Amino acid sequence: MKITKKIIGCAFGLLLAGAAQAAEQRFVIIINAYDTNIPELNVEGVTVKNIRAFNVLNEPETLTVKKGTTVKIAIENRSPISEGFSIDEYGIKEVIKPKETKSLSFKADKAGAFTIWCQLHPKNIHLPGSLNVIE
Amino acid sequence: MKITKKIIGCAFGLLLAGAAQAAEQRFVIIINAYDTNIPELNVEGVTVKNIRAFNVLNEPETLTVKKGTTVKIAIENRSPISEGFSIDEYGIKEVIKPKETKSLSFKADKAGAFTIWCQLHPKNIHLPGSLNVIE
Amino acid sequence: MKITKKIIGCAFGLLLAGAAQAAEQRFVIIINAYDTNIPELNVEGVTVKNIRAFNVLNEPETLTVKKGTTVKIAIENRSPISEGFSIDEYGIKEVIKPKETKSLSFKADKAGAFTIWCQLHPKNIHLPGSLNVIE
Repeated sequence: MKITKKIIGCAFGLLLAGAAQAAEQRFVIIINAYDTNIPELNVEGVTVKNIRAFNVLNEPETLTVKKGTTVKIAIENRSPISEGFSIDEYGIKEVIKPKETKSLSFKADKAGAFTIWCQLHPKNIHLPGSLNVIE
Repeated sequence: MKITKKIIGCAFGLLLAGAAQAAEQRFVIIINAYDTNIPELNVEGVTVKNIRAFNVLNEPETLTVKKGTTVKIAIENRSPISEGFSIDEYGIKEVIKPKETKSLSFKADKAGAFTIWCQLHPKNIHLPGSLNVIE
Repeated sequence: MKITKKIIGCAFGLLLAGAAQAAEQRFVIIINAYDTNIPELNVEGVTVKNIRAFNVLNEPETLTVKKGTTVKIAIENRSPISEGFSIDEYGIKEVIKPKETKSLSFKADKAGAFTIWCQLHPKNIHLPGSLNVIE
């Protein structure tokens, strides 16, 4: 009797592990533009000069899920212009207008690391992120 | 007799899996500032001009743990000024002074991807990272 | 009889889990240089000026594997000059010539987050990535 309980518990444990593999994971990514222009700045006794940087960032930049997970991403564009969101290996290529939130869903059925990038702008302006799908 | 051993082995295997879920993971993050000023440079026959970049980086930038892990991070600030370290969804908001190492600990009990960012400086100067918590 | 089947199924399940832990994961990383020079640009009614950025990126930037995985990375250098690829904690320090693809392999036997960086250029020019090894 005691043995049977253990066996059932064990089988149930494995079933639970299987269920976790097939789970769904939701993400919210904010796309935002940062325009920084600092002719000269003194902070805590340190001076920096001639800083000029313009970048668009995905926040968060990197996503990680187990293989088999249904990934649901809501992408909100807070940049003043349209931004792109592409993951080539998953056939994703979206354009999100300013102030728009676009939702997409896919099953992460390929393990590996995949670049999340903007197909509209140079990659050193709109910095790419990564989608990690682990076995 | 043989069967009983397998059952115990199996139950023990599941216990071990449970223990791994509740494990602790330690990280060391170095925050450093990089000031690059290249009026003109010729490398391997390629010329680049007017490069000016000032950035603060977290190294490593991205952390990944299983949900339920106790995360212990030692953050060492090698930048000459104070730097911030925030993960909003986990209520983390630290200021680390130059040459200081600050340690923090939290239980990663929310799955998802969360931005690690500096609350003191523009995000395209001090580039954000990601905390990935997988189910 | 029924009980025996469950026991065998359970043992087999654990064997499979063990096999997954010892799996191999292949990655392809493209190293590319992005030279952006925009004196003035008007996009969708937004004007940006004096943008100058030169960066080298690893695509994808972040890799994640389970501890015990054999990691095989093919690194293709599309930058016009030689680029570096280092992961200190795994003793990796490679130089990849322009147009060259270099392959490396290692067993991810240390859990944690490790910086992937270029030992040849400033880190705010060739932006670092992360290797995440989870328990």
